[in-house]
Amino acid sequence: MEPVNVIGAGMTSFGILDDSLIQLAEQASFNAMSDSQTLDLSFDHLVIGSQNPDEFVNIGHLSTLLADRLGMVPAGATRVETGPSSGSSAFEAAFTMIASGHSDLVLVIGVEKMSEVDRGIASKILAKMMSIENETRYGATPSALAAMVARRYMHDYRLTRDELSLVPVKAHKNGAKNPLAHFQKEVTLENVNNARVVADPLTLFDCCPTSDGAASVVLASDRMVSDLGLSDQAVRVLGVGHGTDYHAVQHRLSLTSFGATIAAAERAFSMAKVEAKDIDVCELHDAFSILELINMEDIGITERGHAIDLVKDGSTEVDGQIPVNTTGGLKARGHPTGGTGVAQIHDIYCQLMQKAPKDLQVSSPVFGLTQNIGGFGNNMVVGLFSAP
Amino acid sequence: MEPVNVIGAGMTSFGILDDSLIQLAEQASFNAMSDSQTLDLSFDHLVIGSQNPDEFVNIGHLSTLLADRLGMVPAGATRVETGPSSGSSAFEAAFTMIASGHSDLVLVIGVEKMSEVDRGIASKILAKMMSIENETRYGATPSALAAMVARRYMHDYRLTRDELSLVPVKAHKNGAKNPLAHFQKEVTLENVNNARVVADPLTLFDCCPTSDGAASVVLASDRMVSDLGLSDQAVRVLGVGHGTDYHAVQHRLSLTSFGATIAAAERAFSMAKVEAKDIDVCELHDAFSILELINMEDIGITERGHAIDLVKDGSTEVDGQIPVNTTGGLKARGHPTGGTGVAQIHDIYCQLMQKAPKDLQVSSPVFGLTQNIGGFGNNMVVGLFSAP
Repeated sequence: MEPVNVIGAGMTSFGILDDSLIQLAEQASFNAMSDSQTLDLSFDHLVIGSQNPDEFVNIGHLSTLLADRLGMVPAGATRVETGPSSGSSAFEAAFTMIASGHSDLVLVIGVEKMSEVDRGIASKILAKMMSIENETRYGATPSALAAMVARRYMHDYRLTRDELSLVPVKAHKNGAKNPLAHFQKEVTLENVNNARVVADPLTLFDCCPTSDGAASVVLASDRMVSDLGLSDQAVRVLGVGHGTDYHAVQHRLSLTSFGATIAAAERAFSMAKVEAKDIDVCELHDAFSILELINMEDIGITERGHAIDLVKDGSTEVDGQIPVNTTGGLKARGHPTGGTGVAQIHDIYCQLMQKAPKDLQVSSPVFGLTQNIGGFGNNMVVGLFSAP
Repeated sequence: MEPVNVIGAGMTSFGILDDSLIQLAEQASFNAMSDSQTLDLSFDHLVIGSQNPDEFVNIGHLSTLLADRLGMVPAGATRVETGPSSGSSAFEAAFTMIASGHSDLVLVIGVEKMSEVDRGIASKILAKMMSIENETRYGATPSALAAMVARRYMHDYRLTRDELSLVPVKAHKNGAKNPLAHFQKEVTLENVNNARVVADPLTLFDCCPTSDGAASVVLASDRMVSDLGLSDQAVRVLGVGHGTDYHAVQHRLSLTSFGATIAAAERAFSMAKVEAKDIDVCELHDAFSILELINMEDIGITERGHAIDLVKDGSTEVDGQIPVNTTGGLKARGHPTGGTGVAQIHDIYCQLMQKAPKDLQVSSPVFGLTQNIGGFGNNMVVGLFSAP
């Protein structure tokens, strides 16, 4: 397998934005190409992660349209979709293109523009990723499933409402310092507890927003890194793992653990030859607050039921032992579904390059991890990265 | 780059079918897994090519749903979309997974179920792949663009209506012998000429149908082939190339040649270290009759303007020098958009394994080629294969 490197990253602000999907993709990729000094180079391939541009913005066959708009013709162009993990699945596809020796320079873009349709329509579009037979027809929504999971976790591990609220408090604390975050203001434990209930026990602040936004990274082979003299900004991709679980939550072995994360992490760690204890900084898919705790446990950062201890003792803060979601996570950075996976890689790239926003930089991290969920735990993609 | 092999293939009938998209995908992949004796093995990944399941059949996040239905959990699962070349782009993604050494056994499925929506709705869904600014808003449709291309080609190369009609006549002649084809009846030159006009000069028989159907192939590493003792049914993937062109037809250099095919073919031939003259059998994307001629020329099978000579002298027939679309092509086999690219590989696999339907088997072919178009010439994927 040929080594694969991230040599640059860029993203747009996340939020409810005026720019079109195409403009967002253009901005993020321009930033990534500028960062990697590849604006005037010929790329072998462009891989786009986007959940549903056909319905969110009425654009089909997005990949070729973007190849044209970005001046990349005749490079190959492919769109990848795995629900809200589309961005990291696009990264995975691009990774294998270079790992195979098939390509030397590949652009990855994750993008979603969710605000052009009404929120009700957006919810309907997103709900298509759930099981019609087992979930949607009974009125289940992602929030409802997350609430059920939270309730079970609280029962099994005696997690309290006040404890769970510490997760979004941390997310917003970090987001407040991230100039690209959807929400850049802090919230208190009382704000979280007293916000309107979305699905009991989850309140508004336990749930990530739907956002517009794009992120982009440039992947390169060792040969390309050497030719360009960019070894000082080449973050190595140590491992990528992808796992699935049964489509409907009711068919799974556990409500408080995601088999897909366990499978994906096992593959990524095995490829990378590093362990969970080696990770210095990570971006986890906290679409709902409870997921951050479960993801930490499934990845092996801590024992089952004990993730909250690391939140409470400050270990997951920027200056803690294992900083989690230093840029605000999905909760505060925002969640343009197809964009999130690439934004996570962007943020870990910045951490490993020591270019994170002021007050969010982790002290000299060496190993970074990303974990992105597609569907409600249906599939996961885990990435592992090391500093130059 | 690790060598990649196709070790089995399967497909459903193509046509207007009662089965659901999921059932079609299940049948095709069951056939491919049976053919490759891999029904009881653990796959590393499942890659689905499908253009728009969200809108055609109201299913999102298809990849994980299928991983569940096919009993493949916790294998990774990814959907790939590049318009009507989604199937061959899925194949390309799966190819690089094995070529990288990342995976040993990957299932590819191409599927579309287009008949659940009205034909008018289907046309609107398909039209999203064209340029809104430059084409769709002026009322252009794929058929209209093809008609314009045909008219220009007839002008430049003095192709006659009677000559062009020989292409669908051959397609239907082959389709009549393919038990899985959407149309299994022959048509005459008069039938083609006198059919109702779709977009002048193209008649109904110059245009492929919209179909339902699925096709599947199993890809394996050399190690897996050796472990399974399947070297006698391992068709080698010699090369894969992917190219794009400007999104709107009016921005391209030529109306009678597709730059994306030229780019894709060049890459595939370069990787494969074979030339166009070496090809013994090929499947080309004849969504419109005129495209078969242009594709032959862009791939380098013959000189510009001379493809019709090979049709007229019988060279493209099953027993000719360079058989083209021996199983009926998109015209007669049918065109479930995401399914077509994988069906082409299925049919070339069968040819190279000498398992083509009776009277359609080419005499001892060694090298086979597939060419699949996404959009109206927006992007192309070319595959090259050799017999065991």
